[in-house]
Amino acid sequence: MRRSILNDPDQIVPEALEGFVLSHPHLLDLDAEHRFVARKERARDKVGLVSGGGSGHEPLHAGFVGTGMLDVAVAGAVFASPTALQVLEATKAADSGRGVVQIVKNYTGDVLNFRIAGEISGDDAIDTEIVLVDDDLATESSDGEGPGRRGTAATVIVEKVCGAAAEEGKDLHEVAEVGRRVAASARTMSLALAAGTHPGDDAPQFELGSDEVELGVGIHGERAARRVPFTDADGLTDLLLDPLLEELGLAKGDRVLAIVNGLGAAYPLELNLAARRLHHRLRDAGIEVGRSLVGSYVTSLDMHGFSLTLMPLDDELRRLWDAPVRTPALTW
Amino acid sequence: MRRSILNDPDQIVPEALEGFVLSHPHLLDLDAEHRFVARKERARDKVGLVSGGGSGHEPLHAGFVGTGMLDVAVAGAVFASPTALQVLEATKAADSGRGVVQIVKNYTGDVLNFRIAGEISGDDAIDTEIVLVDDDLATESSDGEGPGRRGTAATVIVEKVCGAAAEEGKDLHEVAEVGRRVAASARTMSLALAAGTHPGDDAPQFELGSDEVELGVGIHGERAARRVPFTDADGLTDLLLDPLLEELGLAKGDRVLAIVNGLGAAYPLELNLAARRLHHRLRDAGIEVGRSLVGSYVTSLDMHGFSLTLMPLDDELRRLWDAPVRTPALTW
Repeated sequence: MRRSILNDPDQIVPEALEGFVLSHPHLLDLDAEHRFVARKERARDKVGLVSGGGSGHEPLHAGFVGTGMLDVAVAGAVFASPTALQVLEATKAADSGRGVVQIVKNYTGDVLNFRIAGEISGDDAIDTEIVLVDDDLATESSDGEGPGRRGTAATVIVEKVCGAAAEEGKDLHEVAEVGRRVAASARTMSLALAAGTHPGDDAPQFELGSDEVELGVGIHGERAARRVPFTDADGLTDLLLDPLLEELGLAKGDRVLAIVNGLGAAYPLELNLAARRLHHRLRDAGIEVGRSLVGSYVTSLDMHGFSLTLMPLDDELRRLWDAPVRTPALTW
Repeated sequence: MRRSILNDPDQIVPEALEGFVLSHPHLLDLDAEHRFVARKERARDKVGLVSGGGSGHEPLHAGFVGTGMLDVAVAGAVFASPTALQVLEATKAADSGRGVVQIVKNYTGDVLNFRIAGEISGDDAIDTEIVLVDDDLATESSDGEGPGRRGTAATVIVEKVCGAAAEEGKDLHEVAEVGRRVAASARTMSLALAAGTHPGDDAPQFELGSDEVELGVGIHGERAARRVPFTDADGLTDLLLDPLLEELGLAKGDRVLAIVNGLGAAYPLELNLAARRLHHRLRDAGIEVGRSLVGSYVTSLDMHGFSLTLMPLDDELRRLWDAPVRTPALTW
């Protein structure tokens, strides 16, 4: 049984947002009513960037609000979409007259509420475009039917490169297009050794046998289609890497951006073992790791597991990735 | 039972160090033989800074190697001191001719091995001074006997301000003295809702009843003197804050630096609830939170819990804290 550091479970999101903004007073403002976090110094004369979704994935999204990344992040309850009204107000707050790109992970509720907000914001003469992030290879449908792939850790790349493109002065459509290019080319695979526990619950979201690994798990405690035998760090990393390499058709001479992402309770020693294997495998395949990120960026409460994200990295994306960023969770 | 993302348990530290350095190729170099991480661009003509200790506390210490903080971090096995030979080689690597400050958490093995290394390095004409970090209020001894207070999260402050002082060109003794000033004035209290599990072990380091909290826990799975009843996030935060406020004699008009530090498995929503309570309590007491840091910086594997660190913040320490820093785990 996991006990949580928690007051009233119904107030965890507003209370945590308040604590987060109090801890970053020079960077962030809070709209407590609509539960969004915005840059303290609102950007002027650039395309606005808003993202958001259910809570429980921190530092996503509020941790990526700041110069060079998001203008506004709006928070739903744990694993639940923010409402269309919240998204509308967040979109308004992100607008400085050049329109707003909405970065949306591909979940039914999020897509619906961001779409509605985008349509209504037209009444306020705010142009919007949506970038849909759907990188989770585990939910690839062979026949193209169904809700499509889920959005997971590639969201960090989309938010980073769109943020840089907006700071550069690109227009609404250009910023959205570079985000779509990331979304189209980045793929992620995740696995869990143990599910997370919803705040206030006693039991984890699912149970696994001591010899089982949930391969292709989602970030909301969704079960995967496959359970595979438990193995060592190298073997676990290969379980994620092999399908990614195949799907992306990567070959000798290619260059990628790689993310080794902890899902909550994986500690740095563990993630660094996965990073080591990733680097060894790609080196042996003649694939250059042009840029990488290792840490817990898109989480699922205290789920124990990790994901790998790979994206072919061209010169433009590398330049946008390298551009300065100053947010609570990502700064360079 | 917690399963680990792990290959050979005996190789976890060298493998993780390798993965860590591969993930930060522009910032870091690895000395695989002596298991230390050093800045890729060695500093010239400044006081060197070396720290280190047992592994399992990541991102401490290797995550704080870089401009404005450490020159070298040396790693022992999980929860075990690096050897004197390792520390000696790390100290040599940190020296650019102006001497080396060794930042040492107050544990018997670390203190012994850093002292020996400091003495031997004199043979190579390297001047060294030790800054001992002993901030853990839970191990305050009423009679001054025993090993003294343990070193915990205040290490981050010591490493940051000594790093800034060294970049400013201060001399060996001046850099050490500012570190000692931090160590003398910063205090930490920690609690755990669940112990961590040593890599390769099946069971956590200790078991707690569902109504118990380990108050005053150490970062090596040491039991505390007290178990207190489980309570909500505000109550847990108060358990740490009350003794700190009393010990430091803080009063209206004072200004502090505060760290809310996750011990491993506490996720950001949880830490932000603690941060919120901390800010509310200090605001109500008329104490200014001049600077703060919220995240998992000094951990104990996957221990579930958190610590609070408070330090009175004068203008010099604030200036040194604010100075630019570029490391894997702390950048501004």
